Amino acid sequence: MKTVPLVVTGFGNVGRAFFSLMREKKEDLKRRYGLALDVLAVAQAEGCFYSGGPLEVRQISQGGEPWTSGNPSWRAEMKVADIIEETGPGGCLVECTLSNLETGEPGLSYITGAFHGGWHAVAASKGALVVGFPALKALAAEKGVFLKLSGATAAALPTLDVGLFSLAGARIEGIQGILNGTTNYILTRMGEGLDYAEALQEAQARGIAEPDPAHDVDGWDTASKILIITNACLDADYGLKDVQVRGIAGVSVDFVQSARREGRSVKLLATASPKRQAGKWSLDVRPSLIEATHPLANVNGTEKGITFLTDSMGSVTVTGGRSNPRGAAAALLKDIINIYRPAF
Amino acid sequence: MKTVPLVVTGFGNVGRAFFSLMREKKEDLKRRYGLALDVLAVAQAEGCFYSGGPLEVRQISQGGEPWTSGNPSWRAEMKVADIIEETGPGGCLVECTLSNLETGEPGLSYITGAFHGGWHAVAASKGALVVGFPALKALAAEKGVFLKLSGATAAALPTLDVGLFSLAGARIEGIQGILNGTTNYILTRMGEGLDYAEALQEAQARGIAEPDPAHDVDGWDTASKILIITNACLDADYGLKDVQVRGIAGVSVDFVQSARREGRSVKLLATASPKRQAGKWSLDVRPSLIEATHPLANVNGTEKGITFLTDSMGSVTVTGGRSNPRGAAAALLKDIINIYRPAF
Repeated sequence: MKTVPLVVTGFGNVGRAFFSLMREKKEDLKRRYGLALDVLAVAQAEGCFYSGGPLEVRQISQGGEPWTSGNPSWRAEMKVADIIEETGPGGCLVECTLSNLETGEPGLSYITGAFHGGWHAVAASKGALVVGFPALKALAAEKGVFLKLSGATAAALPTLDVGLFSLAGARIEGIQGILNGTTNYILTRMGEGLDYAEALQEAQARGIAEPDPAHDVDGWDTASKILIITNACLDADYGLKDVQVRGIAGVSVDFVQSARREGRSVKLLATASPKRQAGKWSLDVRPSLIEATHPLANVNGTEKGITFLTDSMGSVTVTGGRSNPRGAAAALLKDIINIYRPAF
Repeated sequence: MKTVPLVVTGFGNVGRAFFSLMREKKEDLKRRYGLALDVLAVAQAEGCFYSGGPLEVRQISQGGEPWTSGNPSWRAEMKVADIIEETGPGGCLVECTLSNLETGEPGLSYITGAFHGGWHAVAASKGALVVGFPALKALAAEKGVFLKLSGATAAALPTLDVGLFSLAGARIEGIQGILNGTTNYILTRMGEGLDYAEALQEAQARGIAEPDPAHDVDGWDTASKILIITNACLDADYGLKDVQVRGIAGVSVDFVQSARREGRSVKLLATASPKRQAGKWSLDVRPSLIEATHPLANVNGTEKGITFLTDSMGSVTVTGGRSNPRGAAAALLKDIINIYRPAF
């Protein structure tokens, strides 16, 4: 049995779902992978929950909200780096903050700090990866630790697993993805007759779209994902500024429905395609018409999917995978297992 | 740079495609994964090609056929086990024979011998895995070596990668697959109006079906794959006798076409589904009606696909992946890379 020390940064929906999944899977992780996970600390902007032993949810939150005032496990001003240093190398940071897409913070500092302390990192947040993935990857290699990103690249849909593991040895010649469930839901409902405003409103009422839906509908969530996937799978170093982005707000219901009558569909498609200049890629997010025979044509509602075109393996498509906080938590857990498990 | 000694057993279509892919990817493997692959021997039933150094295709074959008589690299009676012992542990067996589904031979002896010599094994042949996967897996664990099966479980379609790696930590609650390209091609063409005999004949004329198509059309190829996938992903120990198998020969064109008119399709579906008795699975291969919304509904022609139903990750489907000898060779190469590559 291997005991793995963890520090969880952030305690929003994903952090909470991770705790609950970890508890649900406790016996299973021991039996199937020989792993016991101990959360030593949960970091917030102003300090850490820390009790000197494995933390339980009841020590962190009351009524679902972080519980600081009067909590014997709350240490204002305590830093993650200190906990990592005290614990020694070999643990894993579980990055669940809402990191900024321009500065990468606070995730960037957390992950960098973990690597310097000899810890691995698994990330559900995108900021640090959008801003500095190549540098983080180089630092991880230098320190001999893992950086795993499943939680930040479409959660339970295994985009990077396929791109990096299942396609090992193949040359990727193009990537196409439906990477955002909210916009795919809205476009699917528009195909069924709702106009954009109605479909968005319904998605908000059902908790699929955020009250401020801009990050999804303007295409930036999709752009962040195709950027991270491209940089990781193609060893590239693009930034968000290199992605041509058009969201779905300008898509008319007539356009979606006439496509549908012709047996086609409109999807917010993210693509990475090779430029004429060898080794250069063009990154693009925009509402696109796809044929009924396209491998992503059946990806409807909140589902997501990705297609890789390769030289030696043909085209490989993966679809599905839960995309709610539980799906993101499952992706984090998977990455942790794949860092520590015995050979399989 | 890590130099990996290989022994290839069998030199049929897949073995030849593996050689040609290895040569094509030589520089790429060095640059991307730091690996150099050296084939030390190619084994046939009556002896080995062996020259004391890395073998080239021209030393093994003339005009595409194995070249024994008068060949300075041909050693009649030479055994794979002797080459492995002489080389020492750490190499990899590349199993490409046509192994028997009842005895598992010759693959079973080759793989067992490799493990006893401290070698890993990657397999494109199914016999040994159908007959004795759990025992082979236990032996591999005991010897601290890898047994990888991508080439035997739908080639470039990453069935086991998803089941074992991408779904780590999730509980698999069901598996459904279209795992044989030949039968899927025939059923697809029947949907387009051909009767069974016409569709089969066309598949044979196009090199998709074998001159003796029984292994495919009677469902045994599909049964072997769902069996190996189930045993590997669910830690089970079923045999071919546990799989209920019905092939496609009795499927009428009327049935396929009336399904199509209703927006459904007929697929040779392999399923593993939980029995009421906890921990027991029911394995089944039969022509099945699936709805247009089923994630495998769009898998047509020689394409394949697999869907995993899980507790924490929802349903995850992977489709596509080249299934010709080049695809199988790419799957073998991927498994070798994933055994030896540095952490990623």
